[in-house]
Amino acid sequence: MKHISLMGATGSIGTQTLDVLKEHPDEFRLSAFSVGKNLDLARKIIVEFQPELVSLSEKNDMEVLKSEFPGISFTYGQQGLTEVAVYHKADVLVNAVLGSVGLEPTLQAIEEKKTIAIANKETLVTAGHLVMEAAKKNGVSLLPVDSEHSAIFQALQGEKEKNIEKLILTASGGSFRDKTREELQNVTVEQALNHPNWSMGAKITIDSASMMNKGLEVIEAHWLFSMPYENIDVLLHKESIIHSMIEFHDSSVIAQLGTPDMRVPIQYALTYPDRLPLPSANRLNLAEIGKLHFTAMDFNRFRCLQLAYDAGKAGGSMPTVLNAANEAAVAAFLEGKISFLQIEEYIERALHAHQHIANPGLTEIKSADAEARKYVSSLI
Amino acid sequence: MKHISLMGATGSIGTQTLDVLKEHPDEFRLSAFSVGKNLDLARKIIVEFQPELVSLSEKNDMEVLKSEFPGISFTYGQQGLTEVAVYHKADVLVNAVLGSVGLEPTLQAIEEKKTIAIANKETLVTAGHLVMEAAKKNGVSLLPVDSEHSAIFQALQGEKEKNIEKLILTASGGSFRDKTREELQNVTVEQALNHPNWSMGAKITIDSASMMNKGLEVIEAHWLFSMPYENIDVLLHKESIIHSMIEFHDSSVIAQLGTPDMRVPIQYALTYPDRLPLPSANRLNLAEIGKLHFTAMDFNRFRCLQLAYDAGKAGGSMPTVLNAANEAAVAAFLEGKISFLQIEEYIERALHAHQHIANPGLTEIKSADAEARKYVSSLI
Repeated sequence: MKHISLMGATGSIGTQTLDVLKEHPDEFRLSAFSVGKNLDLARKIIVEFQPELVSLSEKNDMEVLKSEFPGISFTYGQQGLTEVAVYHKADVLVNAVLGSVGLEPTLQAIEEKKTIAIANKETLVTAGHLVMEAAKKNGVSLLPVDSEHSAIFQALQGEKEKNIEKLILTASGGSFRDKTREELQNVTVEQALNHPNWSMGAKITIDSASMMNKGLEVIEAHWLFSMPYENIDVLLHKESIIHSMIEFHDSSVIAQLGTPDMRVPIQYALTYPDRLPLPSANRLNLAEIGKLHFTAMDFNRFRCLQLAYDAGKAGGSMPTVLNAANEAAVAAFLEGKISFLQIEEYIERALHAHQHIANPGLTEIKSADAEARKYVSSLI
Repeated sequence: MKHISLMGATGSIGTQTLDVLKEHPDEFRLSAFSVGKNLDLARKIIVEFQPELVSLSEKNDMEVLKSEFPGISFTYGQQGLTEVAVYHKADVLVNAVLGSVGLEPTLQAIEEKKTIAIANKETLVTAGHLVMEAAKKNGVSLLPVDSEHSAIFQALQGEKEKNIEKLILTASGGSFRDKTREELQNVTVEQALNHPNWSMGAKITIDSASMMNKGLEVIEAHWLFSMPYENIDVLLHKESIIHSMIEFHDSSVIAQLGTPDMRVPIQYALTYPDRLPLPSANRLNLAEIGKLHFTAMDFNRFRCLQLAYDAGKAGGSMPTVLNAANEAAVAAFLEGKISFLQIEEYIERALHAHQHIANPGLTEIKSADAEARKYVSSLI
């Protein structure tokens, strides 16, 4: 029986994590979870999973639930998130919160030697060097939940990292993959949210449309698999059936494939190094699909991806700025305050405006993050 | 330094095995090899690799080479093949001979605890139960060299067999993949030998055109991976880029991909569980290829495949008869004595004529094999 703590239970990854736990009640127990402000869903989760600790964003919300469920411990805010992350009974922390708020609780959980199932890519993008250093020092495994990184992680089983020639991350191309840059001038939020293959949260769907999501994944892959940026390729593959690949130095390529179903990589992270059945997952039927398409990535068309490679290679505080500026710009786009192409423009300007810090500590990362958000706000 | 003995050095797999050894002179040494009647190539191999033992098919040929290379030991015939197979210095036997002559030397080598790199699928098709039993008893690894089985073997690394839902062998469709059964009535030997993706020996190229090659591979996969026939699928994939796949019970699919280059699976078998660089192998470029196609297998169109599944499921001596009848019929087709569609007809008749033996020993296998060949000859 593995005990799970889950940060971000009501988001897309969070609810699918709960689906996986439901499939295997004898294998997993939800010990602690955090939610934002969705009290209705929090109530349902409490009733169904009977956890021991629940954290909410706001103190008021906590008081409401506390009165309804007297047998359960409640907490709130950033401190509450950390309490969930380090909950003493949990073996595995699933980090499924959005954005860089997941960073500090994850670092704390690593110090407590929790295995980390990481769906929150911003944690690694913002402070990959700190997270990997802490994981190494504490002998902690970081298990990827993103479908691309899970694919690479699965393809890597039984193989040696020294034999890798390159990682090939596949990219669906997002909502606007068939649009030219000219056509991107006037796209709406609604259009951007209409992803062709995956049903995900709003932020990541916009990141898919801008290709920043793939850029963040490149940086995440760099850290998770100790891979130089020169050895990470991105390939457009509109069906999202091949989730990613490893090319070894003998030219052999190992790929992981499947229908788009995030429960598969989530479950793999929870059952690793074993697998468990998932009978409710749709089976891949390549004969029915008929064709898989592949196209070289166009870095001029998808400028956010180039910005991510550049920030990743520059290293230090630059990925922090990339991520924070992107979060601020995407939020502004979703609120209708800026246009789609202004997202990349503002990120680029934030990167230019930033004074590079070579090996930032947590305090410097937090101030680089805050500074980048403030800078983007000042442009709007 | 691994010492290699190689049965079938001048065939397609044999020469490519030598290419692999040449790439890594510090890793591998050719200690012993067998050839058929190609003295010119045998001389070249002797000069280049300086082996200790060489076996030829014919005594006369042996005498010729013996006088030319006084420092090397020579032998001949079926006994010579076995001497090469069990050569005392060899760590690995590469079985790359054609047809069922490879069976007994392989069984002997297993008794001598040699690791077996098996390119000769007839060995497993003809007597899979004996080979696997001997391998298990002697703690010997059977490493597949066929690209499909190597793909499955690579995909299986780090995974547990209990978690496999099915194996998916891909099939290019061979020379006649776009022809209807009606169009197959009058195809020529020359047309059959024109394989779209792979350059291979004549027998296996005909087997590819008839889909018997895939049938033999299904039986081979059944034995190598202890997989029931119900859990082995065949998928038409004309580009031969995905070499085969495993679907696990969580719906995740792991595949091995690459350009068609037999040196890659050969080298993998020799370097397993590690890999070595193979810089001269063409790298897979999916963006350049653009599309991969998949079509469901039509068992009415490719009747040999159905015959192979039926013989495999019947078990006992039936796969032996299938293989022997196929060898005889393909030889007759290559000699222009029968038509292409008569291959499957004669195999089917041989299977019907045979009295099934449930658990045949080596003697019974040899007589079932001889009887099937004789029966097919009687039809011509």
